[in-house]
Amino acid sequence: MDNNFLVIGGDLRIVKLVNMLSDKNIVYTYGLEKAKEIDSNKNIIKCKKIDEEVLQKNNVIIGPTPFSKDGLNIFAPYSNSKINIKDVIGKCKDKNLIAGSIKEDILEIAKENNIQVTDMIKNEKLAILNSISTAEGAIEAAMKETDTIIHGSNVLILGFGRIGKVLAKKLQGLSAHITCAARKQEDLAWINAYGYNSININKMGKELEQFDIIFNTVPYLILTKEKLKYLNKKCLLIELASNPGGIDRKEAENYKIKVVEALALPGKVAPTTTAEFIKEAIYDII
Amino acid sequence: MDNNFLVIGGDLRIVKLVNMLSDKNIVYTYGLEKAKEIDSNKNIIKCKKIDEEVLQKNNVIIGPTPFSKDGLNIFAPYSNSKINIKDVIGKCKDKNLIAGSIKEDILEIAKENNIQVTDMIKNEKLAILNSISTAEGAIEAAMKETDTIIHGSNVLILGFGRIGKVLAKKLQGLSAHITCAARKQEDLAWINAYGYNSININKMGKELEQFDIIFNTVPYLILTKEKLKYLNKKCLLIELASNPGGIDRKEAENYKIKVVEALALPGKVAPTTTAEFIKEAIYDII
Amino acid sequence: MDNNFLVIGGDLRIVKLVNMLSDKNIVYTYGLEKAKEIDSNKNIIKCKKIDEEVLQKNNVIIGPTPFSKDGLNIFAPYSNSKINIKDVIGKCKDKNLIAGSIKEDILEIAKENNIQVTDMIKNEKLAILNSISTAEGAIEAAMKETDTIIHGSNVLILGFGRIGKVLAKKLQGLSAHITCAARKQEDLAWINAYGYNSININKMGKELEQFDIIFNTVPYLILTKEKLKYLNKKCLLIELASNPGGIDRKEAENYKIKVVEALALPGKVAPTTTAEFIKEAIYDII
Amino acid sequence: MDNNFLVIGGDLRIVKLVNMLSDKNIVYTYGLEKAKEIDSNKNIIKCKKIDEEVLQKNNVIIGPTPFSKDGLNIFAPYSNSKINIKDVIGKCKDKNLIAGSIKEDILEIAKENNIQVTDMIKNEKLAILNSISTAEGAIEAAMKETDTIIHGSNVLILGFGRIGKVLAKKLQGLSAHITCAARKQEDLAWINAYGYNSININKMGKELEQFDIIFNTVPYLILTKEKLKYLNKKCLLIELASNPGGIDRKEAENYKIKVVEALALPGKVAPTTTAEFIKEAIYDII
Repeated sequence: MDNNFLVIGGDLRIVKLVNMLSDKNIVYTYGLEKAKEIDSNKNIIKCKKIDEEVLQKNNVIIGPTPFSKDGLNIFAPYSNSKINIKDVIGKCKDKNLIAGSIKEDILEIAKENNIQVTDMIKNEKLAILNSISTAEGAIEAAMKETDTIIHGSNVLILGFGRIGKVLAKKLQGLSAHITCAARKQEDLAWINAYGYNSININKMGKELEQFDIIFNTVPYLILTKEKLKYLNKKCLLIELASNPGGIDRKEAENYKIKVVEALALPGKVAPTTTAEFIKEAIYDII
Repeated sequence: MDNNFLVIGGDLRIVKLVNMLSDKNIVYTYGLEKAKEIDSNKNIIKCKKIDEEVLQKNNVIIGPTPFSKDGLNIFAPYSNSKINIKDVIGKCKDKNLIAGSIKEDILEIAKENNIQVTDMIKNEKLAILNSISTAEGAIEAAMKETDTIIHGSNVLILGFGRIGKVLAKKLQGLSAHITCAARKQEDLAWINAYGYNSININKMGKELEQFDIIFNTVPYLILTKEKLKYLNKKCLLIELASNPGGIDRKEAENYKIKVVEALALPGKVAPTTTAEFIKEAIYDII
Repeated sequence: MDNNFLVIGGDLRIVKLVNMLSDKNIVYTYGLEKAKEIDSNKNIIKCKKIDEEVLQKNNVIIGPTPFSKDGLNIFAPYSNSKINIKDVIGKCKDKNLIAGSIKEDILEIAKENNIQVTDMIKNEKLAILNSISTAEGAIEAAMKETDTIIHGSNVLILGFGRIGKVLAKKLQGLSAHITCAARKQEDLAWINAYGYNSININKMGKELEQFDIIFNTVPYLILTKEKLKYLNKKCLLIELASNPGGIDRKEAENYKIKVVEALALPGKVAPTTTAEFIKEAIYDII
Repeated sequence: MDNNFLVIGGDLRIVKLVNMLSDKNIVYTYGLEKAKEIDSNKNIIKCKKIDEEVLQKNNVIIGPTPFSKDGLNIFAPYSNSKINIKDVIGKCKDKNLIAGSIKEDILEIAKENNIQVTDMIKNEKLAILNSISTAEGAIEAAMKETDTIIHGSNVLILGFGRIGKVLAKKLQGLSAHITCAARKQEDLAWINAYGYNSININKMGKELEQFDIIFNTVPYLILTKEKLKYLNKKCLLIELASNPGGIDRKEAENYKIKVVEALALPGKVAPTTTAEFIKEAIYDII
């Protein structure tokens, strides 16, 4: 590894990533002034500005996930000042940019500046590895929000994609009784092949009343008013899919059913592991 | 279920299938005269010939997997006489034919006769379910062929497709130490997400010596002479992929490494379950 | 079930127990005035005092675990006033008393009053069931206190008694690599039979450095200064055994190794389940 | 290791043991003339007779399990001639004898000759390790004797001792649905803590009809005529306990329920592993 990296902005995951990368590479940072956890070592160089001198030494620029929250500035909670996206991109002609969840208009500008962009959110390997952290975070949430044990409880997982698969395995490992809901015949066959109970997600009805905990991983509405009416009032709903998610929260509230939203778990429950996975993905890319 | 079925030819799986189907449907059979396990009940009608009368009552014709072994006759080990494919197809105009592993030229003739063909071998759901039986059969073979226990042994699975996934889970459930080999970054990430050790199938070398049992599921040569030289001489190789398979058997013999071929396991180790799965698939289709 | 119960004092577990028992029995309560979670139903009778009238209707008296914290009064955090043990016992001649962790001197007085005492803490069945909640609570603590994932981490469990056995199974189910330490040859054989790595607890040395998380379940000092020196500084120690426990916390602090104490977990992480288990145990007893 | 061993009689396990011991020790053999698998190396000395010269060099004598089948001669299927127990014992004064399943009268004679006897059958560690092989052998038998898959089947295990515990874990690892039957409240609690369904072995009735496979590990009659009547006729019974075992075989036959006897599995299904475990036990002893 003889690459340098210029890291701009980011949250705790990026801070940990900087420290990890500095084991083997020179890492230039910008917009992380307030991060106390940054190690002090000769491989980490804190830049006051992004100038020609810095850019000359760096071909790979690493940004946060999401790349921006407001569409104007790079997401940089540890920065003392705002970091305007267009300013940065204007300076980084012909470089590689690795960041996550980059909006279309920014991709456009990057392209105009001949910047080669890799969006980490589209990195399948990273997404799979992150689903491990998501599954653990979801389990931690379930443990925290119930005053019963997961052992022996009836758990329903809506959706059998990346998160559903890993979550089901882990919950079975904790001796819960697992049912997974999916739509495609193929997925239903896989659910059986992994030893879980299967249910057609489009045909769920009265059998919903048996569940103690339901995890949703589907990004569109599944638990409508009509489905929610079947639930046991003590059932805990855990929403893992981003907005709008699969649970009608308003209706759940009407039924007095508890809903817990647990989003963006990898960065929250396992920032070090997440940084480790990002590091691996970066090494794969370059 | 108000369908009739005409079942032509087939092995023990078909025999069991006939009995199962007869619970809810009328089943006409042809070419199963020697099958002693066929139940005697009013729903099973043994035909002496396939004539207009029989065909009038049946829109769905079920054939064996493989449909034919010689390319001329339907595979019918329980039949007293040969059953010529073209004769049958000529009579079955406008019907549905469900069978497995049907060759291109037969598909052509079927099309000319306006027969709607479903090849079970291309049924993804059935393939997934059959991988359960294959995994169990592979484990049974490993148990039988070793004079050690699987518990605590180092097992390598080549390939992380359907069979690899199910086999890995089951072997881990028997307390073996599992390593899975794959090529794609994505598959390697999945292997980790499921809690197994991963190894790049293209970069395997000296670490091969640690394995006690290696299962191959890849349909092209993986364990070449060069790879085989690293193996422990006591290692057992189990070939699950059909010809040519992934193991250079000649070279393995030279190294005095034992190779066991375990093919077409679902029909052999669990004919009843396999018939059950075929029945489900047929009900899905019609 | 046609028994009445008189419940005196207790924490949230007892409150939940009262509600559960009231499904099938009449429950008289004393010393739970401040408990808001007590259901209002005809089967729960809140007593202002323990008088002849109340005692006449109850042969089984249920107290908390621990029965007392100060040796003088019954443990009653929801009571408005102190409940003197001797007063109560003096009134309860010839009754059955079920409570937990009852001191020797109280047993003596109970005996003098011909009270038949069952100490729940000595109930093996309850202890086994509680170890499930303890294991889940220990895992929740580990998830909360690390910024890495448990998946793939190297975990050492000191002791292979009730908690060690259940905890090991669950952590393996979360895809951690498990090593269990015990002293007896028999326990070491069991550790192997369950598919974990084993280590002689008296001979641990340099291999300690590989562990990311260590759970202690042994009630006497195991991780002395001499052992702690081998640990990775990032290792998390979780103490599950009550005082003095198995970890020299002062020395761990010197080594800057994080120690988390997680005691009395069943009542904290799963009070409803714990109450359920106590209810079962009570029904077993009477 | 600087011990010599004199090995007398025994079956394939002993043959493998001789080869293993010869890695580090000098091994004298007697009564294994017909065993072709004995390695030829300088550490193995085949004795023509047990004379003073041989005995002078050996303090530890290893015999088979069982030590004798007829009560008169040492169990020696690879010997060309009978080996009279009394003859041997008379010569082995003041030595150590390690063998298995030694009858009381022989222990008596050994004692008179000041021979220190260790009965391997009473070695708890070995018994635990052997239960791993037994569990695998039992699973292999179940796979072989059914034409369905174990995956998803309803399995009942009678008894929750060594074999029950290991077998339950492995079958669950193969995605079977596990119910364990025991008598003691404590064992029933353990069954739940390990995540299996539990059933009181004394109260089994109509619920027996749900099971596809029943393994018995209890050495006294459990499945009496009265219990057998509840079973599904397709249920497979596997007897793992030695005579009389827990299944009324005659009555099972009347009900046309298949019973498979699978005894002494460690030596049959995994002689090498078994020899390895015996070797470990011998090293523990000396």
